[in-house]
Amino acid sequence: MSLIVQKYGGSSVSDAESVKRVAKRIVETRKAGHDVVVAVSAMGDTTDELLDLAHTVTPLPEPRELDMLLSAGERISMAVLAMAIKGMGYDAQSFTGSQAGMLTDAHHGAARIVDVTPVRVRKALDSGAIAIVAGFQGFNRDTMDITTLGRGGSDTTAVALAAALDADICEIYTDVDGIFTSDPRVVPRAHKIDTVTSEEMLELAAAGAKVLYIRAVEYARRHGVTLHVRSSFSNNEGTLVINPKEGETVEQPIVTGVAIDLSEAKITVVGVPDVPGKAAQIFKIIARADANVDMIVQNVSAAATGLTDISFTLPKSEAQSVLTALRNERDDVKFASLQHDDQIGKLALVGAGMRTNTGVSARLFESLYDAGINIDMISTSEIRISVVTRADTIAEAARAVHTAFGLDGDVDAVVYAGTGR
Amino acid sequence: MSLIVQKYGGSSVSDAESVKRVAKRIVETRKAGHDVVVAVSAMGDTTDELLDLAHTVTPLPEPRELDMLLSAGERISMAVLAMAIKGMGYDAQSFTGSQAGMLTDAHHGAARIVDVTPVRVRKALDSGAIAIVAGFQGFNRDTMDITTLGRGGSDTTAVALAAALDADICEIYTDVDGIFTSDPRVVPRAHKIDTVTSEEMLELAAAGAKVLYIRAVEYARRHGVTLHVRSSFSNNEGTLVINPKEGETVEQPIVTGVAIDLSEAKITVVGVPDVPGKAAQIFKIIARADANVDMIVQNVSAAATGLTDISFTLPKSEAQSVLTALRNERDDVKFASLQHDDQIGKLALVGAGMRTNTGVSARLFESLYDAGINIDMISTSEIRISVVTRADTIAEAARAVHTAFGLDGDVDAVVYAGTGR
Repeated sequence: MSLIVQKYGGSSVSDAESVKRVAKRIVETRKAGHDVVVAVSAMGDTTDELLDLAHTVTPLPEPRELDMLLSAGERISMAVLAMAIKGMGYDAQSFTGSQAGMLTDAHHGAARIVDVTPVRVRKALDSGAIAIVAGFQGFNRDTMDITTLGRGGSDTTAVALAAALDADICEIYTDVDGIFTSDPRVVPRAHKIDTVTSEEMLELAAAGAKVLYIRAVEYARRHGVTLHVRSSFSNNEGTLVINPKEGETVEQPIVTGVAIDLSEAKITVVGVPDVPGKAAQIFKIIARADANVDMIVQNVSAAATGLTDISFTLPKSEAQSVLTALRNERDDVKFASLQHDDQIGKLALVGAGMRTNTGVSARLFESLYDAGINIDMISTSEIRISVVTRADTIAEAARAVHTAFGLDGDVDAVVYAGTGR
Repeated sequence: MSLIVQKYGGSSVSDAESVKRVAKRIVETRKAGHDVVVAVSAMGDTTDELLDLAHTVTPLPEPRELDMLLSAGERISMAVLAMAIKGMGYDAQSFTGSQAGMLTDAHHGAARIVDVTPVRVRKALDSGAIAIVAGFQGFNRDTMDITTLGRGGSDTTAVALAAALDADICEIYTDVDGIFTSDPRVVPRAHKIDTVTSEEMLELAAAGAKVLYIRAVEYARRHGVTLHVRSSFSNNEGTLVINPKEGETVEQPIVTGVAIDLSEAKITVVGVPDVPGKAAQIFKIIARADANVDMIVQNVSAAATGLTDISFTLPKSEAQSVLTALRNERDDVKFASLQHDDQIGKLALVGAGMRTNTGVSARLFESLYDAGINIDMISTSEIRISVVTRADTIAEAARAVHTAFGLDGDVDAVVYAGTGR
């Protein structure tokens, strides 16, 4: 008998019928002899509808009240799911974030988990019941207020419960079959990955793979929780996200996947005096504008002028405020001009095998060159190489690299319409 | 400066626009220098929609989960109301039943309040904020579970908060102007009552007046809370429900109002042996069928036969199960037959002045006789006389009695379409 934590997203519980289907799946897991804890998101578009309601009433809703409001969504889904399971003759009890001991800091809208004390969840399991826990929400002990965990919060709830309960596995149910070697809508020969390390998964998620949220993967990695990302619409095996121990060798291909991302823009600060402390000065300005900078590249200084260019990428939506912030400090920083490019695409090659294999970047650049694709920026980590190209060449680039590294499956992947939450 | 508790029902907060209108009214009360605590129901038909959802998933939802589900309704309305007030530049904080210290027993779906410890509400008031409390819900300390108070629960929440906070007044906002001398749809000359005692209000509510729930009036009476029942759609004064102290004389008309009720049926147990213990035996059977018996009349025994008839009224919906229960015990009780009549109407004349005035019943019977209306059953309390007549004569009966006791206003009452919650 194992202890299994399952997470179901909003698209898996969009109406009464799908709640019943999910209840059946949970009951089947219980019937197989396992203890089951479920983290559930709000039904369908409930969270967005509640957000709309809030913004109809006031343009800037109070964060504390917004969390109170949004937390009603999971309260509905968890109670309905629990009564559906009860209706099938199996014992089930639902718990809010606070009842499940999901203790967070007081940062409304994006609270961090500080402790998980699932005493009542454990008691429910001991009594033979299935425990249904509200995803996405927590509780701050100092203010005694309800908090929410922000985007992907239900994934984090599931992983945190799995860690605190020492679960055997944390199953993340979504509307795709698992993690793919690339986006099947762009690369038809992309195929599902059977196993990926959490380290690789982090790089893939950071590079644009949308199925899992970085925060949940980080939490799983830190606490050694094994994830199983799978579809709630089939019984197929999905993708295992594992945490090999220090020194443990896992048979892995050199390259696990090719992630692409069209959501970023590039800003270049042109003609920056090449003196110590300049980069720090620039990125302090950017940090004050609350921007999430991704890649940073500084060109070699042209000896004649003593000037250099600094380029960085960031989410498109944050570009304008950063441009304004930099312009306001131009006299201080003494740069020549700013360039803004929102027609870029990012491609990231990820694989733990890169560590011990040479020539990966050479093969990457060669395959792009063969496809006639120009590289704009390059950035590398231990197990990832990212390149920025023109947005309109990104699909061709992904297909070329996918083929060059032997990732192509035998058949085209089936593409689903929906997106995970 | 006073402390005012206001209660707004679902029809007063049916959408974003009406939430803003209610927020404005609350802010105006605050601006006038008062401390304000608000008990709010779920928006519009939310509670019914959640009930429907539950019944789509399973025919008999688990009571604990149903309470968890339904409590989401007030969580939404209170948060939206609080953020609307915040948006107007006034401080507001929302509190769930448990955060507001609304402690109940564990009877899910119809929990009784056992203690009210509004520490956080008091703290919010002390900091200058308006406190918004979820109506209808509470918390059981033993099970640590969410409960709901049942029908009219938000009225009870408001009254309980007013009592615990020693508020100066508890304003119950609804969609009618107050308590009327009779139902204006039946008696056009009915008029709003300015002041009524809680004792009279209890009798009126028990006799079919729907504006206030008996339980909330009982609570107000027991704790000496003054209620002000008024419309959330106008600034008119409504009806004060007061608690005169022992011995205190209140200038009152002999008769306060004429309530009518068409929701009951009459059952007569015919030919019951007139021996001690028979009535007890019969009403034990009825109690086991969970029926709410209202009026009971036993005729004088016919000396020749030693048999008597026992009649009682009860909600129409409960008649069939009681008839079945009685039929099953016929051999034991040894009655002759059962009569069932669902075409009855009940009229109740209520007034604290009856205590010290003789001739009230004579005048009632005379006015009905003059109108050619036959009386079927009579039952009296200290401050109420109820009669049962044919359903199709009840309107005429009400108008005749209303006139006979000088209750007619100078003009016809304005009739609103909606009904309060």
